Amino acid sequence: MAKVLSGAGLRGQVAGKTALSTVGKSGSGLTYRGYDVKELAEHCDFEEVAYLILKGHLPTQAELDSYKGELRSMRGLPQALKEVLERIPADAHPMDVLRTGCSMLGNLEGETSFDLQGKVTDRMLACFPSIICYWYRFSHDGVRINVETDDDSIGAHFLHMLHGKKPNDLHERVMHVSLILYAEHEFNASTFTARVCASTLSDMHSCVTGAIGSLRGPLHGGANEAAMDMIQGFTSAEHAEQEMMGMLERKEKIMGFGHAIYSECDPRNEIIKLWSEKLAKDVGDTVLYPVSVRCEEVMWREKKLFCNADFFHASAYNFMGIPTKLFTPIFVMSRLTGWAAHVMEQRADNRIIRPSAEYTGEELRPVPPISGR
Amino acid sequence: MAKVLSGAGLRGQVAGKTALSTVGKSGSGLTYRGYDVKELAEHCDFEEVAYLILKGHLPTQAELDSYKGELRSMRGLPQALKEVLERIPADAHPMDVLRTGCSMLGNLEGETSFDLQGKVTDRMLACFPSIICYWYRFSHDGVRINVETDDDSIGAHFLHMLHGKKPNDLHERVMHVSLILYAEHEFNASTFTARVCASTLSDMHSCVTGAIGSLRGPLHGGANEAAMDMIQGFTSAEHAEQEMMGMLERKEKIMGFGHAIYSECDPRNEIIKLWSEKLAKDVGDTVLYPVSVRCEEVMWREKKLFCNADFFHASAYNFMGIPTKLFTPIFVMSRLTGWAAHVMEQRADNRIIRPSAEYTGEELRPVPPISGR
Repeated sequence: MAKVLSGAGLRGQVAGKTALSTVGKSGSGLTYRGYDVKELAEHCDFEEVAYLILKGHLPTQAELDSYKGELRSMRGLPQALKEVLERIPADAHPMDVLRTGCSMLGNLEGETSFDLQGKVTDRMLACFPSIICYWYRFSHDGVRINVETDDDSIGAHFLHMLHGKKPNDLHERVMHVSLILYAEHEFNASTFTARVCASTLSDMHSCVTGAIGSLRGPLHGGANEAAMDMIQGFTSAEHAEQEMMGMLERKEKIMGFGHAIYSECDPRNEIIKLWSEKLAKDVGDTVLYPVSVRCEEVMWREKKLFCNADFFHASAYNFMGIPTKLFTPIFVMSRLTGWAAHVMEQRADNRIIRPSAEYTGEELRPVPPISGR
Repeated sequence: MAKVLSGAGLRGQVAGKTALSTVGKSGSGLTYRGYDVKELAEHCDFEEVAYLILKGHLPTQAELDSYKGELRSMRGLPQALKEVLERIPADAHPMDVLRTGCSMLGNLEGETSFDLQGKVTDRMLACFPSIICYWYRFSHDGVRINVETDDDSIGAHFLHMLHGKKPNDLHERVMHVSLILYAEHEFNASTFTARVCASTLSDMHSCVTGAIGSLRGPLHGGANEAAMDMIQGFTSAEHAEQEMMGMLERKEKIMGFGHAIYSECDPRNEIIKLWSEKLAKDVGDTVLYPVSVRCEEVMWREKKLFCNADFFHASAYNFMGIPTKLFTPIFVMSRLTGWAAHVMEQRADNRIIRPSAEYTGEELRPVPPISGR
């Protein structure tokens, strides 16, 4: 498994052990603790999957009910945190808002002992939607929203705060599916950031704050936003084909296709594509979904590149009325489960992560006096 | 150079290239861009070394004067950032304060283009001392300090704000030396955190925020604080010896000794030890310095463990009246140079850092219905 690949990106180099997921293992695509993500997305609520990832087993009905109740009770934001969010301008990057909100939470409710790691994680799961929606609605609509709703799920809580009304059952279900699909993905760059931070025995808020910063990068978490920016410029399937052929000819980068680990397909795509289609029918869309399908066809025909998890997420989120700039924060609300579980795993069998570098710089030389430089 | 070492801590695995420093290379100890840190600490101001690390060469006198002037002009804090700092309680971890301050700065003055990477780095170098002192003095002393002083150097600016008066020449010189010694150290965990984040093409504030979170960990940046906590409990050299022998017998962890990379000595120790001795004479100390020297003797005699950079930093900082809880934030004020230079280096030849994991979890299994769990 471990190959001698010095240098770029640690690709193929084993940086640790995990029992949390497999990515691209033959026959099973993506699994969380041995369960195929397709089955989980079909049968489970997101809170069941978060419980599975964080606590190690799928909950019974009683455990799930109790867990949902706990999460519901933790949605409120401390006054000082609200006051911080009110000082972040409307044109800030929403990922910077979440990064700052998470960091500030660590000042107010720090993880003073690793015994609290489960509790502070649940707290973040419950209140990250509150943080992003409180800031968004205050900075964009000038209102101080109530973040302590009685919605059953994290996805419904988010949509409720965003739109000021409870979501319908279809939208709540799609949020479950979306949050499940994004929950965990082995040693991707943001999760690896969290593990490097955890390896110094730093606190959970530092690990998650760092991971948010990495997910913010356009090579990592921003692909669904970039896909949305592209497809909303196309007025029909024919127009999409024409424009994409031009982009391909000009060798422009097209986001939402291909993957660093998957080589044949992204198992999450067929799931979210199906839900995007359902949402399209529900809202009577005749443009965005056909446009998306045509993009998929063109990229496969021309480049043998498949849609990754992000591509049909763009249209799905759009059909639910979610502003494009909040797509990546939803990714955070979900992937937080994987990050925290990896932090716990790192802590349980830790050695500080400190690789070596290949030196390419100057040989030893004397310091010249400043007058002689 | 690259060895097949699957698993723990990536020790010995090459994770990338750097021209910034060598650590523990035979004969030269620690070098920044080819210059021995001992020579730099003897002849240079910290701003010269920051310039060297960030811009690639030692400045001429004119370049240094101009650089110091720029940094001086960037010390002020935006009103919104001050208001955030005022909402962080006195019992918060000072590293969490800096992490939050850096993250908030990214919301207010974001790095909207990589062309700005040098400028946002200089801004952070100039205002991190302002952030930590503004919060410290407000939360501990109830005063809103002026952070825009005319001190010549970053170290003097810090001491001036902390104590409310300009430092003497000895203290300013020791700050130069200390900041030089901590400025850069190859692929340590916090720098590696910054590089992983940078590899997603995220912004500089995300990279530095993440690195602060990693430096916060007790296995990484907190050793000088832990050393201070220990030595201030000893009333004399004899008492120190007696207590340390007991700690060694009980196999308690003693901080400030040994190093993950250096095997024979830490080249930074002899330098800071010399300055700690000068400060001891200056303040007329008869306890802390002799206690520290005895600790060093005992650890070498009993365990063949040498003092690392952190151990004599504890007494040196203490002699300058710096509260123990601010020791690690000083580390940030310095290491920021290395972090930012590594981010720039990563960006210049980037591939996303995405290692592999060894899977140790459950085999593929079906999802049981919730009623049957």
